[in-house]
Amino acid sequence: MPFRRWRHVFKLDPDRTLDDARINRICESGTDAIIVGGSSGVNYDNTQQLLFDLRRYDLPCALEVSNLDAAVPGFDLYFVPIVLNTQDTRWLIGEHHHGIKRFGEWIPWEKVYAEGYIILNEEAEAARVANANTDLSVGDVIAYTRLADHIYRLPIIYIEYSGSYGNLDWVEQAAQVTDQAHLFYGGGIDGPDKAMRAAAVADTVIVGNALYDQLDAALHTVAAVKCVKRTIQSRKAD
Amino acid sequence: MPFRRWRHVFKLDPDRTLDDARINRICESGTDAIIVGGSSGVNYDNTQQLLFDLRRYDLPCALEVSNLDAAVPGFDLYFVPIVLNTQDTRWLIGEHHHGIKRFGEWIPWEKVYAEGYIILNEEAEAARVANANTDLSVGDVIAYTRLADHIYRLPIIYIEYSGSYGNLDWVEQAAQVTDQAHLFYGGGIDGPDKAMRAAAVADTVIVGNALYDQLDAALHTVAAVKCVKRTIQSRKAD
Repeated sequence: MPFRRWRHVFKLDPDRTLDDARINRICESGTDAIIVGGSSGVNYDNTQQLLFDLRRYDLPCALEVSNLDAAVPGFDLYFVPIVLNTQDTRWLIGEHHHGIKRFGEWIPWEKVYAEGYIILNEEAEAARVANANTDLSVGDVIAYTRLADHIYRLPIIYIEYSGSYGNLDWVEQAAQVTDQAHLFYGGGIDGPDKAMRAAAVADTVIVGNALYDQLDAALHTVAAVKCVKRTIQSRKAD
Repeated sequence: MPFRRWRHVFKLDPDRTLDDARINRICESGTDAIIVGGSSGVNYDNTQQLLFDLRRYDLPCALEVSNLDAAVPGFDLYFVPIVLNTQDTRWLIGEHHHGIKRFGEWIPWEKVYAEGYIILNEEAEAARVANANTDLSVGDVIAYTRLADHIYRLPIIYIEYSGSYGNLDWVEQAAQVTDQAHLFYGGGIDGPDKAMRAAAVADTVIVGNALYDQLDAALHTVAAVKCVKRTIQSRKAD
């Protein structure tokens, strides 16, 4: 599982524009990988165009498949979101079943990994789209983490505060009960300080929106994450 | 995963009565294991009593935890059903989340394995309780199988026709697309012939109702299953 070595990732949205000079700075920043994904406006053409732009650089590219029509071939990895705190079977299994029924025979399974999302910012577009119940306690978050880790045995748990900086104490408590899954944290990281705190508790820190709003600060998160050692005692193998 | 070596299993319902002589014949039959579970009327007391009766024999006992209040300690394994074709998040994640939130710290995870159920007999009590959509094509069954195997990475897929003998061609097609998961088949096996056909396509054949209705025929399924070699080329490791 190549993502197990990623400490820092930039997440690029095919529906938002970045000129070549910015893409160059992002890809030459020292980040470990790029995830391509977004909650709305993602289609085949803009996903393919972004992959084309990224392929000039020697950096792993993962597509987060949240829209079947944008399942572009050629990525190194495909991440499949499962929204653990959704209130609609569609985002737990329905869309996935539909997609596998349609494309099952052609799916390169060795490149496919499920992400168990816990979406915690009620104002995030992802929370709205996936009908997530964000009214959760830390006990709920820990229970979802244990469930994803031990029952579903998902390779990735993704604690997502998209648009706001999360409660990192909760992320730390989730990390402490995680055995085999790899923990992504994303949301509200707009500079080195927040990145360092997240890097102490999550396996991988994901920086997205800041790339569009304050590129210089976003680029500084790379070195910040890389200089932090994760403080959670992990029982995971590489 | 000890269940990987099970070819034949008897499933006992705590809500149905079996005298000591019958339990003796069942446990001395040569079956590989006992699963304890039922869709209704299962409680702590009748589950504990059944475990007590079974513990006189040297046979692995697994509890299928479909009711939190009946989660009796002392079983060798705990199977957690996830109903893939439910129409209600409760049977995919809700009940599980609730239970883990309540008991998470005391759960012996090394004994816990999820079963991805595909319930196919619309008249089964399990279908009613779990609000399963049984109006499925073979393509749907294959897609659920791939999803459970590759996306959720469940250790067990359980094709369940409880109360009727299933479409074994469908089970065979599901088996053919399964990589890592272990395949249970249950439903309508009331004698050696049906058991042999099921044993040719499933990893484990589960015999339940026949124990109560026609014990002699049910006991003959053990030898029948054991003399059949599975015809599906499996890529699974033990």
